[in-house]
Amino acid sequence: MKAPELILYTDSSPNGFKITIALEELGLPYTLKHVQIDRGEHRQAGFLTLNPYGRIPVLVDEGAGITLFESAAILMYLAEKAGRLLPGDSASRWSAITWLMFHASSMGPLLGQRVHYELFETPAIDTVTKRFRRLTEVAFATLDTRLEHNEWLAGSEYSIADIATFGWMHIVRIVAFDFSHYRHLSDWYERVNQRPAVQRGIRLPQPATGP
Amino acid sequence: MKAPELILYTDSSPNGFKITIALEELGLPYTLKHVQIDRGEHRQAGFLTLNPYGRIPVLVDEGAGITLFESAAILMYLAEKAGRLLPGDSASRWSAITWLMFHASSMGPLLGQRVHYELFETPAIDTVTKRFRRLTEVAFATLDTRLEHNEWLAGSEYSIADIATFGWMHIVRIVAFDFSHYRHLSDWYERVNQRPAVQRGIRLPQPATGP
Ligand SMILES: N[C@@H](CCC(=O)N[C@@H](CS)C(=O)NCC(=O)O)C(=O)O
Ligand SMILES: N[C@@H](CCC(=O)N[C@@H](CS)C(=O)NCC(=O)O)C(=O)O
Repeated sequence: MKAPELILYTDSSPNGFKITIALEELGLPYTLKHVQIDRGEHRQAGFLTLNPYGRIPVLVDEGAGITLFESAAILMYLAEKAGRLLPGDSASRWSAITWLMFHASSMGPLLGQRVHYELFETPAIDTVTKRFRRLTEVAFATLDTRLEHNEWLAGSEYSIADIATFGWMHIVRIVAFDFSHYRHLSDWYERVNQRPAVQRGIRLPQPATGP
Repeated sequence: MKAPELILYTDSSPNGFKITIALEELGLPYTLKHVQIDRGEHRQAGFLTLNPYGRIPVLVDEGAGITLFESAAILMYLAEKAGRLLPGDSASRWSAITWLMFHASSMGPLLGQRVHYELFETPAIDTVTKRFRRLTEVAFATLDTRLEHNEWLAGSEYSIADIATFGWMHIVRIVAFDFSHYRHLSDWYERVNQRPAVQRGIRLPQPATGP
């Protein structure tokens, strides 16, 4: 019998990295389907049946008959399926979920707007660029404080909160939004970045964004 | 013995409504602490020890020794604690979580920016107002399609996905961003709005935003 299959639809982008990293960490077998955003493949009818919002990533678990979109939902699903990457004790587990949500709902969307207004909007609109820069700096400072006395976002265990946050911070590094003065955040970045599964995850799918 | 206590720190605002509605639906006893954003109470040191990001809502479960922020994390916590408002079967449960994340990570943040640029930014910046209007319309259309053949966002069961989405749609209605042409979304809005717990939730804390 063929193993029930996980199929990941993704591109080389912040929300995509979260899932390739998680799958590599968990060592779950999966099929990767490259949805090329710059060719508009995320707007094609076939893909819209998987995610009517037309965004990557999407995960299909054929064995379970489940289709998921939204990177944070997919991360929670994979952690639950594998029984890893979410701490077992209740307080740490909810701490991981809180920081996952902080990323998914507060920080990630602001970084998305900062990238848009700082790098892509022409002509540049100074007040808007500054506002999103300021708001993302508040998010960086919040993480920096959290990581001052905690090795990982949930506390002492590496979790999907770190993976989600790293997916976006990897792009922050690539586009050179400076966060080196947030020392604890920078140190945490290096700790995550050294993990072999993370190095594999950020290179999928090929050709990968970044150096 | 005193019952272990839930303490909700909130204001009369979109992310706050989500939790007052959920607590009213679940009938869990809780203490409500009004954090007045317009007086800057969310930036005071005491509140920042609860949520270093300085945002409402925050939930403290004294019995469990757990402090949570981020409305989506709090909703998942309450549903798990009460064993209600998340469907029991796996496919519907993950559908609820997917639509909860769609709201928390995609739609809610865009609505926040639309409110800011359409109602508060002076002088108005036409291109920015239009962009966030367009992006929130895509989110409305996505929900409308989802609700064409589903009574609730997760399918046949009312869940925290509906509560989260309604928290923001209530404000959308108050500030008169028109969504009446999204017929399924409008019908769903009325279905949610009729629930007694929802009517109680949107009036807390007093004085409530809205008519
Ligand atoms: N909140 C969503 C965001 C998904 C998202 O915006 N994905 C981007 C790539 S990182 C995308 O598909 N963009 C295509 C577009 O916006 O048209 C998540 O966390 O999955
Ligand atoms: N993603 C967060 C957003 C929380 C949020 O932005 N809350 C608003 C009220 S609805 C707030 O506290 N605003 C105060 C501020 O931004 O300074 C959540 O879902 O809880």
